[in-house]
Amino acid sequence: MFDAAIIGTGPAGLSAALTLQIHGINMIWFGSDPICEKVAKAEKIHNYPGFPAVSGAALAAAFQAHAGQMGLKVTAQVVTSVLPMGDHYALSAGADFYEAKTVLIAAGAAAAGTLPGESELLGRGVSYCATCDGMLYRGKRIAVICTAKRLEHEIAYLAELAEHIDLFAFYKDCAVNLPNVTLRSEKPQGVEGGFRFTGLRLQSGEILAADGLFCLRTAVSLNTLLPGLETEENHIRVNRNQETNLKNCFAAGDCTGRPYQYAKAAGEGNVAAHSIIRALAE
Amino acid sequence: MFDAAIIGTGPAGLSAALTLQIHGINMIWFGSDPICEKVAKAEKIHNYPGFPAVSGAALAAAFQAHAGQMGLKVTAQVVTSVLPMGDHYALSAGADFYEAKTVLIAAGAAAAGTLPGESELLGRGVSYCATCDGMLYRGKRIAVICTAKRLEHEIAYLAELAEHIDLFAFYKDCAVNLPNVTLRSEKPQGVEGGFRFTGLRLQSGEILAADGLFCLRTAVSLNTLLPGLETEENHIRVNRNQETNLKNCFAAGDCTGRPYQYAKAAGEGNVAAHSIIRALAE
Repeated sequence: MFDAAIIGTGPAGLSAALTLQIHGINMIWFGSDPICEKVAKAEKIHNYPGFPAVSGAALAAAFQAHAGQMGLKVTAQVVTSVLPMGDHYALSAGADFYEAKTVLIAAGAAAAGTLPGESELLGRGVSYCATCDGMLYRGKRIAVICTAKRLEHEIAYLAELAEHIDLFAFYKDCAVNLPNVTLRSEKPQGVEGGFRFTGLRLQSGEILAADGLFCLRTAVSLNTLLPGLETEENHIRVNRNQETNLKNCFAAGDCTGRPYQYAKAAGEGNVAAHSIIRALAE
Repeated sequence: MFDAAIIGTGPAGLSAALTLQIHGINMIWFGSDPICEKVAKAEKIHNYPGFPAVSGAALAAAFQAHAGQMGLKVTAQVVTSVLPMGDHYALSAGADFYEAKTVLIAAGAAAAGTLPGESELLGRGVSYCATCDGMLYRGKRIAVICTAKRLEHEIAYLAELAEHIDLFAFYKDCAVNLPNVTLRSEKPQGVEGGFRFTGLRLQSGEILAADGLFCLRTAVSLNTLLPGLETEENHIRVNRNQETNLKNCFAAGDCTGRPYQYAKAAGEGNVAAHSIIRALAE
């Protein structure tokens, strides 16, 4: 049982992790490794105090160096569900389960949209986890939506099992080149199915039939991640202590709303960490 | 008329100033020069993201360099009053007056306590401004409370006018060495006087009689600075947008409450700047 689980390795997650580390809190930190992958893509930042006219790559490198110097380790898994268990939370990430007394969601802004119909069919032909559910599709036809290059290894895993994959890759330089994977350029518009998933509706109106759908995203949508979490216009509702409506569940950074700024995210991560320390002391 | 006035040059004020500067807001920025004088005194900081195990001096230097690179200028005056004028605010600093459409208070944590009885006698023998009121005490005996070395020049100015000064210096290495200034080591406990100031009550119970009292502090207490500002346990009450109870008056950093942390202050300064930009657009 961890004292704290942090979801997200952007500036908010980093800021919280640094502060929790200083206080000797036993934590697990989920997200991209190296950290701050979105910061690294920013062109130039002028208002993160202390770094004049810094490139995103340089700022991300400074953040990474700070995490390294503090001995912080990242668990590079996507958390797909957070379940309130009364006095703690149970987290699923890949095929693994974790338990933590407190949770900080710092997963970024609208990190994951969902397609119309997707949430309703989750667990009934729609899956967020290749490792967990891939075996169910041995010899079948599946569709895969993938939003980040670093998740490509999951496509390769699925391709070993499935007969055929229609792949919708929403990132640059997709490097998947496998005989049974067809790269599709259309945008899926919705998820079809009654009791069970039957296919993806494409922009053309065509229905691409498949036995299963894997949505491989760097984060799952907030409502799917933690049902019962109060949101407002797709942002997690928090108070000045970064507390959500769920006890011992906190949120920080872009996922709590605008402005989407590194300084704001780092500040909220810091405040959230102090709230976590207080909650653990109680 | 400025679009914005920022009071305070700590991380919150800096963060706001950077963001307002990027947006081309016409502003005035009050505080210490060089900026971040309290940061510079910190021994080691481990959780301001991007600066591993940094000394306060090095972090303050990085902040100063950033301000310089962005062309930010500091007005090194202590703002002693902020007056709501309906559609704008009037600010007094030293003997000067300024007007601004919006105000950001980023003046630090409990930057200024007041002595019992002090506020009541302000303007009736108690003054916060040597330049403004010094002339009234030509040839008289006065007491001076000073909390920062950078305000020593005001003591020198007063010593030219007054017959004698009893000086209570609450900082290290007081360098005032003037024939008519007596350095006192006692702590004043309260301000005495009925309609007008008559003397300082010392710890011993003794009353040190004087014609006037100058309190030279780096900031004035919140209630004195801006009457009507809603506070809670000596902190300014703000919402998630850093709005105070007064329209177009914002607050950020330690003055809004714990945790007293650089990342939190910088985050709030950023959010306040965005709120100011929105307010000006309306």
